[in-house]
Amino acid sequence: MIQPHDGSTKDPLSRLVFELSKLPGIGEKTATRLAYHILKQEASFAEGIAQALLLAKKSTILCNICCNFTETDPCRICADRDRDRSVVCVVERPNDQHSIELSGKFKGLYHVLHGALAPLDGIGPDELKLRELMKRLQNEQTPIEEIILATNPSVEGEATALYISRLLKPFGVRISQLAYGIPMGGQLEFTDRQTIGKAMENRMEIR
Amino acid sequence: MIQPHDGSTKDPLSRLVFELSKLPGIGEKTATRLAYHILKQEASFAEGIAQALLLAKKSTILCNICCNFTETDPCRICADRDRDRSVVCVVERPNDQHSIELSGKFKGLYHVLHGALAPLDGIGPDELKLRELMKRLQNEQTPIEEIILATNPSVEGEATALYISRLLKPFGVRISQLAYGIPMGGQLEFTDRQTIGKAMENRMEIR
Repeated sequence: MIQPHDGSTKDPLSRLVFELSKLPGIGEKTATRLAYHILKQEASFAEGIAQALLLAKKSTILCNICCNFTETDPCRICADRDRDRSVVCVVERPNDQHSIELSGKFKGLYHVLHGALAPLDGIGPDELKLRELMKRLQNEQTPIEEIILATNPSVEGEATALYISRLLKPFGVRISQLAYGIPMGGQLEFTDRQTIGKAMENRMEIR
Repeated sequence: MIQPHDGSTKDPLSRLVFELSKLPGIGEKTATRLAYHILKQEASFAEGIAQALLLAKKSTILCNICCNFTETDPCRICADRDRDRSVVCVVERPNDQHSIELSGKFKGLYHVLHGALAPLDGIGPDELKLRELMKRLQNEQTPIEEIILATNPSVEGEATALYISRLLKPFGVRISQLAYGIPMGGQLEFTDRQTIGKAMENRMEIR
């Protein structure tokens, strides 16, 4: 345990710490805490995680329609005949798709870009699943009437939404965006200026 | 992805999320983020973590002297003839031992209790590695002169230190405790009352 945790050593504990600290948001300190926790449990605990990791990675592919992670192609949502095929919600990441799905308010299909435009990080239009989105719009069997751009309200997300909205204009499809405003359960006092500004700008008439 | 992440389903992604969220400090939301990150990487990424998990759990045992996790018995520190065998630093958890070792200020041996007294959680003296500590004191080949109780400055840690100090009194060994005070690099303004109180109580004369 006196060696540095850099994975170059043969010590299994250091190697586990090194591997765990590759995960996003997990630094060496958290990784060390997790590793000791894992060692303290029954062997089945570590085995359960290891098997789930291998199985998930092995059996997960990208849906050829929406580009989301799936173990069947097309994915469960794209294959679901009860969903509204005329609306497609475009999201940056699978996590975003998951969050929208949990809201229960959307019954259309999704499209996962796997990122947002970030020229400084070398992520241009070709790095996103935009060609796949265009292909869906060109497919005449299931005409798409509306594209909801549900990118994040960040600089990259906004830029991506703007880029896509221009790209899709020639298709004559309706393009919309999620509403920005005060979060539910939030308090005005603790809401940032930009959000209050957006909420003011997008205020809605009470009928 | 519309199923709840409870592991009862056969969906590999949900199972991975379920397994990861068993880790301490990792809720379903973080687990979902980690899982999507893992899926986005090369297969070798998931395999690296899985192998490290299995290897660490398989090859790690408890040192028969200090009760720390180790892959050799006795562990590297207990086997090191250059260390001062007359001083033993008692810690709650392997993580604590690791932190003290990183400070570079201690050249004696350790003893890992694997917990602290917490009667409400069913952790009494028998759940800690106290019998092993007594055995070390009784071993006349390597007489121990000082026991440093480096338990955490929490209610449980303090109670454990007090319990051990009484338990070891008959052995006539010197028993000490880590100094409590203002943390290095800390600011008085942001230091809690208890810590300032301790620092005041334990103030040291400048010579």
